[in-house]
Amino acid sequence: MRPLAGVYTILTTPFQSNGSLDDVGLRKLVEASIACGIDGLTALGVAGEAHKLTEAERRRVVELTIDTVADRVPVVVGASRESTEATIEACRDAERAGAAGVMIAPPTFVQPGAALTRHFARISEATTLPITLQDFPPVNGVTLGPADMAGLVEAAPTIVTVKLEDPPTPQRIAQLVELLGDRDVSIVGGAGGLYLLDELRRGARGTMTGFAYPEVLVRIWSAWKAGDHAAAADAYYHFLPLLVFEGQPKLGVAVRKEILRRRGLIANALVRQPGPQLVPAIVDDLEQTLTWLGMDDEFPPSAEGEDR
Amino acid sequence: MRPLAGVYTILTTPFQSNGSLDDVGLRKLVEASIACGIDGLTALGVAGEAHKLTEAERRRVVELTIDTVADRVPVVVGASRESTEATIEACRDAERAGAAGVMIAPPTFVQPGAALTRHFARISEATTLPITLQDFPPVNGVTLGPADMAGLVEAAPTIVTVKLEDPPTPQRIAQLVELLGDRDVSIVGGAGGLYLLDELRRGARGTMTGFAYPEVLVRIWSAWKAGDHAAAADAYYHFLPLLVFEGQPKLGVAVRKEILRRRGLIANALVRQPGPQLVPAIVDDLEQTLTWLGMDDEFPPSAEGEDR
Amino acid sequence: MRPLAGVYTILTTPFQSNGSLDDVGLRKLVEASIACGIDGLTALGVAGEAHKLTEAERRRVVELTIDTVADRVPVVVGASRESTEATIEACRDAERAGAAGVMIAPPTFVQPGAALTRHFARISEATTLPITLQDFPPVNGVTLGPADMAGLVEAAPTIVTVKLEDPPTPQRIAQLVELLGDRDVSIVGGAGGLYLLDELRRGARGTMTGFAYPEVLVRIWSAWKAGDHAAAADAYYHFLPLLVFEGQPKLGVAVRKEILRRRGLIANALVRQPGPQLVPAIVDDLEQTLTWLGMDDEFPPSAEGEDR
Amino acid sequence: MRPLAGVYTILTTPFQSNGSLDDVGLRKLVEASIACGIDGLTALGVAGEAHKLTEAERRRVVELTIDTVADRVPVVVGASRESTEATIEACRDAERAGAAGVMIAPPTFVQPGAALTRHFARISEATTLPITLQDFPPVNGVTLGPADMAGLVEAAPTIVTVKLEDPPTPQRIAQLVELLGDRDVSIVGGAGGLYLLDELRRGARGTMTGFAYPEVLVRIWSAWKAGDHAAAADAYYHFLPLLVFEGQPKLGVAVRKEILRRRGLIANALVRQPGPQLVPAIVDDLEQTLTWLGMDDEFPPSAEGEDR
Repeated sequence: MRPLAGVYTILTTPFQSNGSLDDVGLRKLVEASIACGIDGLTALGVAGEAHKLTEAERRRVVELTIDTVADRVPVVVGASRESTEATIEACRDAERAGAAGVMIAPPTFVQPGAALTRHFARISEATTLPITLQDFPPVNGVTLGPADMAGLVEAAPTIVTVKLEDPPTPQRIAQLVELLGDRDVSIVGGAGGLYLLDELRRGARGTMTGFAYPEVLVRIWSAWKAGDHAAAADAYYHFLPLLVFEGQPKLGVAVRKEILRRRGLIANALVRQPGPQLVPAIVDDLEQTLTWLGMDDEFPPSAEGEDR
Repeated sequence: MRPLAGVYTILTTPFQSNGSLDDVGLRKLVEASIACGIDGLTALGVAGEAHKLTEAERRRVVELTIDTVADRVPVVVGASRESTEATIEACRDAERAGAAGVMIAPPTFVQPGAALTRHFARISEATTLPITLQDFPPVNGVTLGPADMAGLVEAAPTIVTVKLEDPPTPQRIAQLVELLGDRDVSIVGGAGGLYLLDELRRGARGTMTGFAYPEVLVRIWSAWKAGDHAAAADAYYHFLPLLVFEGQPKLGVAVRKEILRRRGLIANALVRQPGPQLVPAIVDDLEQTLTWLGMDDEFPPSAEGEDR
Repeated sequence: MRPLAGVYTILTTPFQSNGSLDDVGLRKLVEASIACGIDGLTALGVAGEAHKLTEAERRRVVELTIDTVADRVPVVVGASRESTEATIEACRDAERAGAAGVMIAPPTFVQPGAALTRHFARISEATTLPITLQDFPPVNGVTLGPADMAGLVEAAPTIVTVKLEDPPTPQRIAQLVELLGDRDVSIVGGAGGLYLLDELRRGARGTMTGFAYPEVLVRIWSAWKAGDHAAAADAYYHFLPLLVFEGQPKLGVAVRKEILRRRGLIANALVRQPGPQLVPAIVDDLEQTLTWLGMDDEFPPSAEGEDR
Repeated sequence: MRPLAGVYTILTTPFQSNGSLDDVGLRKLVEASIACGIDGLTALGVAGEAHKLTEAERRRVVELTIDTVADRVPVVVGASRESTEATIEACRDAERAGAAGVMIAPPTFVQPGAALTRHFARISEATTLPITLQDFPPVNGVTLGPADMAGLVEAAPTIVTVKLEDPPTPQRIAQLVELLGDRDVSIVGGAGGLYLLDELRRGARGTMTGFAYPEVLVRIWSAWKAGDHAAAADAYYHFLPLLVFEGQPKLGVAVRKEILRRRGLIANALVRQPGPQLVPAIVDDLEQTLTWLGMDDEFPPSAEGEDR
């Protein structure tokens, strides 16, 4: 049960034009992500529109992912539910399906306090998979201060990783690192990698997020891990225009799917509704951004990596 | 496809002491509710802790309810999901299970606007069960103005009933009644019946809510429907202490389960966590309230009904 | 610097038909409240639409109130501001004006944590008036758990009273009482007195709230204080229909002003906009409620008190 | 009464180490902004911590600003209040002080609907200064859809400009532009200029925001206005690392003040509490970001402009 580190890709969930799950696209996305050199995959994240899937679709996404991955990288599965019992059940489902860990956010509107602490403590007692605690207010309306997160980590010993997404993440990471002391818990960023460099500067050991060019996150992380912080900064700043464009709050998943479609990884950029839909002009702006960056849609990304 | 009218009881979901679904208690609750003279039952409401159940438990609750009801009253099933596709699927599941209608609230944080309108329009096109539109901000963070609700009714012709719970319900009902004009859509209240009399005064055709003494709601509604508004007022005001006590925001389900336990309808007052838990003193206060009212725990309620 | 106890009336702010402050009505309200036997007055509460007044109007309200009261009862002044500096300044203004205490809620969206604790600690250091800590999420979006409130009391020694309004108040009072131990801090309820009896049962030492018949709150509190809990319950339950009607969330101030107008205490029921406005039918329903209760609009209330 | 266009700087409010207003710093900031070639200044914005000032300080800020500006550029003054009456009063105060326009956001928690529409319509009738409608949910909890904003513009003819800050701003600008048709109303961005290029691409006629290097925004806007979109893109992308760093939600004002301090424009980076405070490591990261960019702290900025 080790803290997560490196680049964990939150898997996008592709749909066919009729709205149903696109199995082929999902497998291609898994393969492409692994080819990018990521350290792990996360299925059923918010970026994977997990909450917009039916229960059967969720199971299918997990099965397909784990089957396609075939043990090449660990797979974390989103298991947030609205009650302790349902969350425990989701954790056990994930374990049975072969997941290496689970990601859990607080239930909707359950603010920090005794009840939330008990929730995580009981999950930790009743399940065995390592837990990534997720902090992402837009999805549950819950704001966790650094002290709250440290308290949850204290109460639930199987929390091995905290994934911070509520900005300002670099400063909050700095505060949480101090509170965690020498406890063996890792912190990772998210939010599409928008603040990745500064998150690493403050002690993050990686990121768990969706981003349509996982190879970019891998390049930044690899340089950083190797101690070449200047190269990490150069790569991060180089790709910042795209991180900012894709990272637009509420629109991100739609932009990402459009890019993945252009890259030939998925056939359709459809986002489950109600959800973001790009007006045509935004697709043009994306094109302009990619052009300015000289980004290549091609896949595999190895070629892309060469000329920079 | 007729607008709902009368008293629809939102079914409480009982749990055994080990936390699992209490099938026996559920059947007893259904029988007791019907014995109280209600007009219909609603399974998988927020008051039924639907969002805290696993998918398997939800299916089980619906099956047990419909099986026990055996066509004596119509059964409405909660079908709110976070995407149009998942909601449609839930509606179809409800129909296959034998439901007479579905209750749907907006997805979390999806405020009124084009996307929400499309959501309900598409559900209405793709499914056949009559829809009760639910307005209850504490569960989804969505505030619907009267004009918003009228707009959704316009866009989704299978919405036959609007259930208002966001206070002040009497005034909002008055406003919605005016906006709906002669459209054949009913409005019902909720919120534990706390404002039932004034909701009826403003044009509600009943209530869809949980309350541990359904016979009380039935008595108020029956008198009102019979045109005896004075008797309705007397009954409502008589029981108001209990409506207020049980209706305490955030605590209601826990109080209700404690009463149902006292009445011998369920074996255990357990509420799924994170959720409300009564401190012992509040149970004493409930006792005092019931004593002051001279309430009888006994069931069937017929006896209780006599001496008043 | 003593904890508050008894009935503190939050003063309604009356306006003339042209929208400007109604000095005459304000003085009449102060006199009427004192005639009802209240223990203190609170100016510039949310129920006084303090946030909808200009700075000049706020000063005028405080001046008029303190001048009219003429030391007959203590006057607490609302002093919530968005920064520590501005709050301290408001406290000093209140002191200069002759206030006996201040009421302070957290700044908008500043959730519990180190920054909020520092806010209250610094105010406590820099000012001398006793502080009533206010808990009322609808006005600032801040949710305070019992432990958070106990922590603020610990950090800010001049907090002598906590006013709880976020339901369920009786249970939260029970929890806070336990956390406060033998610290000499009082807890009072609010929310229009809707839960007054149960708040007293759980240890509240009174209430600070607006209600159009302060004499009703005084009667309940007096009976309770005298140890006659049965009489307190009888009075509370007797007037509950009106407590519920006036206590409707978001509508309360408008209902209250309409009653005060009927009682001849203010000339105009105008509420500052954007704010609640009663549709005519609701005014009829109010009339029906008062009629059912046999309430007398007359003032002074002494007469009203006799025949019950 | 012309729609605003170009770069309007939201003036930062500097404080002395004792927490009181820094008049000297304020005058220097005004001069520096004008020297940067901005088109206008906005006093009492959220970025100016207007809500954290006392009423006297607000008056002082406006007086100092307008006096220092001495008619060289138009000055817009923030005038959002919680009631229509108080907002009208604030608009008149602004006019008397010599402002060229006002900026108004919806009152706290007043969601779109008839009441909000009336609020703006009445302000528009009762005052003469052109209004900039502000959309910024973090400060008031209000979410305005494009149709809501178009409706307010329709109802309040003196709204000449809409300032959008709720992301995704480029797409929302595209939608609002379409809804506004040929109505002579301008749209400007905000949010620290983070999405400035894409806002311009979608039809924004400038930006109204704080940013510690106004000359950067001016350079982007000037190039864009001159039709040299490539140069605008180059400038925007070049400075994006700093736009992202300073634009961190909730932390922005603190970062900006630290930069302004480094540039010698203000003596102290103090932010009114409760508010953001940079942990030391974040100051180091800012330094690294500036170093990577080769940013010069020097002022006047003319020198800075040369070497790029």
